[in-house]
Amino acid sequence: MTRVAIVGASGYTGGELLRLLATHRGVQVTVATSREHVGRPVHYVHFNLRGVYRDLRFSKLDTDLISERADAVFLSLPHGVSMKYVPAFLEVGMKVIDLSADFRLKNPQAYRYWYGFEHPYPDLLRKAVYGMPELRRSELRDAQLIAVPGCNATASILALLPLARGGVGDLSFVVIDVKAGSSEAGSKPSLPDHHPEREGSVRPYSAEGHRHVAEVEQELGAVTGSEISVSLTPHAVPCVRGVLATAYVRASGEVGAKDLMKAYALTYGREPFVRLVRNSPHKYPNPKYVIGSNFADVSFAVEERLGVIKSFSAIDNLVKGAAGQAVQAFNISAGFPEGEGLKFPPLKPV
Amino acid sequence: MTRVAIVGASGYTGGELLRLLATHRGVQVTVATSREHVGRPVHYVHFNLRGVYRDLRFSKLDTDLISERADAVFLSLPHGVSMKYVPAFLEVGMKVIDLSADFRLKNPQAYRYWYGFEHPYPDLLRKAVYGMPELRRSELRDAQLIAVPGCNATASILALLPLARGGVGDLSFVVIDVKAGSSEAGSKPSLPDHHPEREGSVRPYSAEGHRHVAEVEQELGAVTGSEISVSLTPHAVPCVRGVLATAYVRASGEVGAKDLMKAYALTYGREPFVRLVRNSPHKYPNPKYVIGSNFADVSFAVEERLGVIKSFSAIDNLVKGAAGQAVQAFNISAGFPEGEGLKFPPLKPV
Amino acid sequence: MTRVAIVGASGYTGGELLRLLATHRGVQVTVATSREHVGRPVHYVHFNLRGVYRDLRFSKLDTDLISERADAVFLSLPHGVSMKYVPAFLEVGMKVIDLSADFRLKNPQAYRYWYGFEHPYPDLLRKAVYGMPELRRSELRDAQLIAVPGCNATASILALLPLARGGVGDLSFVVIDVKAGSSEAGSKPSLPDHHPEREGSVRPYSAEGHRHVAEVEQELGAVTGSEISVSLTPHAVPCVRGVLATAYVRASGEVGAKDLMKAYALTYGREPFVRLVRNSPHKYPNPKYVIGSNFADVSFAVEERLGVIKSFSAIDNLVKGAAGQAVQAFNISAGFPEGEGLKFPPLKPV
Amino acid sequence: MTRVAIVGASGYTGGELLRLLATHRGVQVTVATSREHVGRPVHYVHFNLRGVYRDLRFSKLDTDLISERADAVFLSLPHGVSMKYVPAFLEVGMKVIDLSADFRLKNPQAYRYWYGFEHPYPDLLRKAVYGMPELRRSELRDAQLIAVPGCNATASILALLPLARGGVGDLSFVVIDVKAGSSEAGSKPSLPDHHPEREGSVRPYSAEGHRHVAEVEQELGAVTGSEISVSLTPHAVPCVRGVLATAYVRASGEVGAKDLMKAYALTYGREPFVRLVRNSPHKYPNPKYVIGSNFADVSFAVEERLGVIKSFSAIDNLVKGAAGQAVQAFNISAGFPEGEGLKFPPLKPV
Repeated sequence: MTRVAIVGASGYTGGELLRLLATHRGVQVTVATSREHVGRPVHYVHFNLRGVYRDLRFSKLDTDLISERADAVFLSLPHGVSMKYVPAFLEVGMKVIDLSADFRLKNPQAYRYWYGFEHPYPDLLRKAVYGMPELRRSELRDAQLIAVPGCNATASILALLPLARGGVGDLSFVVIDVKAGSSEAGSKPSLPDHHPEREGSVRPYSAEGHRHVAEVEQELGAVTGSEISVSLTPHAVPCVRGVLATAYVRASGEVGAKDLMKAYALTYGREPFVRLVRNSPHKYPNPKYVIGSNFADVSFAVEERLGVIKSFSAIDNLVKGAAGQAVQAFNISAGFPEGEGLKFPPLKPV
Repeated sequence: MTRVAIVGASGYTGGELLRLLATHRGVQVTVATSREHVGRPVHYVHFNLRGVYRDLRFSKLDTDLISERADAVFLSLPHGVSMKYVPAFLEVGMKVIDLSADFRLKNPQAYRYWYGFEHPYPDLLRKAVYGMPELRRSELRDAQLIAVPGCNATASILALLPLARGGVGDLSFVVIDVKAGSSEAGSKPSLPDHHPEREGSVRPYSAEGHRHVAEVEQELGAVTGSEISVSLTPHAVPCVRGVLATAYVRASGEVGAKDLMKAYALTYGREPFVRLVRNSPHKYPNPKYVIGSNFADVSFAVEERLGVIKSFSAIDNLVKGAAGQAVQAFNISAGFPEGEGLKFPPLKPV
Repeated sequence: MTRVAIVGASGYTGGELLRLLATHRGVQVTVATSREHVGRPVHYVHFNLRGVYRDLRFSKLDTDLISERADAVFLSLPHGVSMKYVPAFLEVGMKVIDLSADFRLKNPQAYRYWYGFEHPYPDLLRKAVYGMPELRRSELRDAQLIAVPGCNATASILALLPLARGGVGDLSFVVIDVKAGSSEAGSKPSLPDHHPEREGSVRPYSAEGHRHVAEVEQELGAVTGSEISVSLTPHAVPCVRGVLATAYVRASGEVGAKDLMKAYALTYGREPFVRLVRNSPHKYPNPKYVIGSNFADVSFAVEERLGVIKSFSAIDNLVKGAAGQAVQAFNISAGFPEGEGLKFPPLKPV
Repeated sequence: MTRVAIVGASGYTGGELLRLLATHRGVQVTVATSREHVGRPVHYVHFNLRGVYRDLRFSKLDTDLISERADAVFLSLPHGVSMKYVPAFLEVGMKVIDLSADFRLKNPQAYRYWYGFEHPYPDLLRKAVYGMPELRRSELRDAQLIAVPGCNATASILALLPLARGGVGDLSFVVIDVKAGSSEAGSKPSLPDHHPEREGSVRPYSAEGHRHVAEVEQELGAVTGSEISVSLTPHAVPCVRGVLATAYVRASGEVGAKDLMKAYALTYGREPFVRLVRNSPHKYPNPKYVIGSNFADVSFAVEERLGVIKSFSAIDNLVKGAAGQAVQAFNISAGFPEGEGLKFPPLKPV
């Protein structure tokens, strides 16, 4: 059994790691840290896990203790905080799966522009592998430091990847309109996410530039080999889980549904967690039908009158957009079957 | 024009008073206080009111200023805070409409038991009129101090009043199961009302005794002339506005739907804001169909096999359960038409 | 008093017309038709209106009777059905406010392309005035036939109008991403809008071309005097009321927030029902805060890195997106104050 | 591998059986019937299951074929329909798990009273075992015909069982107030469950007597050995999954929280799927935190002022209230580990 620590285990993503790893047959969670809840059983915070983890209690974040008790560590900490702990874990040879943005970008300058700080470990940026199996499966094998993608970035990249690979769309300028559920904002109460304010809301935010753009431009640019400009606007919508990305791209010449079907099939035909839903009754994805699972549902439309391709991707932001993708990438890097701990089908209806 | 001040105008009830009084033809709101938002236009907080109040800005709570600028004052302050300001307003002859619980109960002991403090103004408890027109319309005429009922109490009393007046149910022991929307908890963010936690929730609270019981027992006891015991359990449900009270009462002898119809018609036949919905397709009320209005919808069922009467009442907690009832009681006390400022029909669907 | 008939009064838009006209001081609703509910009081269907219309009952659609009993008629019928009745009403000199798409487009060919039928009354297309006061206020005065805009079109045009008038964006190609509540689909139950399926959903539809595009291209093209291409994709989101349009436009040269602020102020500074919310805490509109009202909230963002302008508009689809705009246009055409029957502030929270 | 057929597999309960059995290591689903969708893959209806069942398609209900291809059959058919097929399956020696009400009641008269028909197979009523493991685990071993309890009955019985066993409450008269999500109404669209009508609703129904009462009175009466009267009122609330039962009982003498804690611990201490949540931060259960799982969360409150006990139980209506409990009972009867196929933890938040 691989012993696993979860740092920052009292938030939504931490709870989701606990939920998924509870069913992982090769792993035992030995440490779960929380500043606020030290000493309490994990189900004190994660009511859903009562009866699932009988003895696991939250502990302080103590890197020495963690390196003694665990072989791998998942960090679910805020941006800028994660990087303070990662080097120590790497040094003692642990596998590190970081769910923050701290190691996603290759270019240290990008941290200055998008996150407003000077990155202290440019060498680790080179070492880190961007943890999206659909993009970097081979690099993930034996990776020691995995930078798990952001949820909006995951949805965006999965929508556009077949276009990037298939060369059917002009990615020099892409509009992405994202709709995201309230769990994306985390477990800390705030006025915009107070139930009376959030329920029934449809609200754009970060419309002058959203940070996940940096990842999307970096990763898709690496695929096409040319510069990609992405204008991404997230919108808060009144569901709890789920992200839908709608990407708008000008077609490269005459492109029809058949060409796109081929591009999607080529890219995702063998992917265990991406489902093309073009032939479902709805034709387009809906995050509702992936809730609780690591699936990403993708599809597309062509508006021939205008030469516009629309590509869609729906994920559960806490699973394929965070904890699930982290486990999937970890599995690859640690030699487990890729789907271990990720087998449960989505719920419907929910 | 009667000049009106609203103290505590940045919360949900304060906002609702602003919304309703904006359409009141005999009133001008001259003062709106808020600790946090002094100097800001009211629409800075109440986005809905942009373009409705063009010049009104939040000011500090200054009793002298208020008594200069207003003839009547609505207080929307927490329990225990309201009572600090009420005497000063009464002294200068202002009409006071208090939306807290501070003057609802007649018996000072009850404050010790239910609210945990010694009431400093027992004489004012005698002076105050419980602001439910269906119970105390004649006392409200010329009342100087009005204690606006609690929202759960309003729904509960309106459900049971026909039984109390008609003598058809045994009110010596009543079970009331209340379902309430998230706006009842107020505008301050909290973990239980954080959208990801509240959405999809059905959660009992205060199950060992809810304070509104004191009002219900007092007011219904005054109707029947005998002691009434009420076990009331509120449940948080995932809507924003609305309270449904379901009251369970043993029938007094053989009681059928006809007897109840008569009792309800006698009690509410001429009430401008109570609607008996027994003959609607749904037979029972649903707060959804009173949203935004001062209506209370009521109905009943008889389970003849068991001799059980169920009485139902649905209100918008922020209107008939707070600001609307306050305006209705104020109108009566100030000689305005009872429905002034309360004319707008509910929304459907919403 | 102007006597008004509502044809198709049992649906959501019909109910909304009844709600708004109940508070209109110059109008009396004398006829409300419904195929399914003949003889029943209007509150049998519209529970919210119990106690609002005491005597009004649904009747059959009988054009003779309507022309006897009413001076003006609002038609809330499906596309293709409305046009069967409109000529008869016009002939007897009635004012006709049609909420279907049947008279919105000027070009008869467009009906063939977008709606799949040959328009039988091309002359009436010329006579009809597109009922958006912000675009065509002067033509609406004395208009006999008003074609009320579609809800998605209304939101889209209101978002983009300042750009079209101000010449600050390149409208030769516009992407519009619309998010709409479930009431947009009407009152007839269907599987996609069954509560267990719709709640929690985020679902694109009509992604290969949505009919409202025809109106948007026609009306904005008339403003700019040049051809406009619009790619519009609606998304079902899990609220009941509300439409948010997010429009993406390339800037014409260097355009900053100041330029846009000026363009919006010029276009909407004197509009009674459009509110620029750029200086609110949220900066961008949210349909939640216009619910129940005829307001449209608008704002914008500039992504300077990319030269992209995003313009936003939020409306209540049943009010400014249908019944409210119909009443506003009717008021102008009939010489009533423009805001009559439309005075009630939005609800918050709701 | 036990070969399993699901009859009526296109509804919500059928879909849930497919979801759960997909992870059951001792079972293979070989048949899934549907009248409407013959020939289509199961994921055509159950979008969530795309990629989970690759080859399974809906077939007609053909008892011969089913008895050839399956060893056990789960029936998810309407009341009164199930009984037409059950005898044939029993005759050929198959194990039958019936999710309808057709075999839940022991007394044939009760079918006349509650369901309005004469039961054609009174002998099978004797043979059938009521499929609630917490009540009838030993009888379930080797049972051939299992009658899976109703969802409201399951929640009600689980709330009250400790009181019945512990003798701490007076069960001669019990009030049960149930709140249920929209999935309880099934997958067929209807006006009351149309999203615009159901969202935001709190609506009592069947208030003159709900059929599940018959099961509750039968099963709890069997525990106490005396007659039990239950007044049960369900309320539609606006979540998708989940049932909360709140039961109100007069205490038998002086009963405190300690006594109740003991009674609950004795009844549920070793139950694998019942969790006592009294010591959680919320104290009371919330169906939100069991969603997707077979857990039932239970708790209680004592209102000592009145001698009233309130007992609470929260389940996922489609899992512990239907498909999950069916699988749990099946596992016991077939000799599988009781939790097989039911291991996945609930989601939070969802």
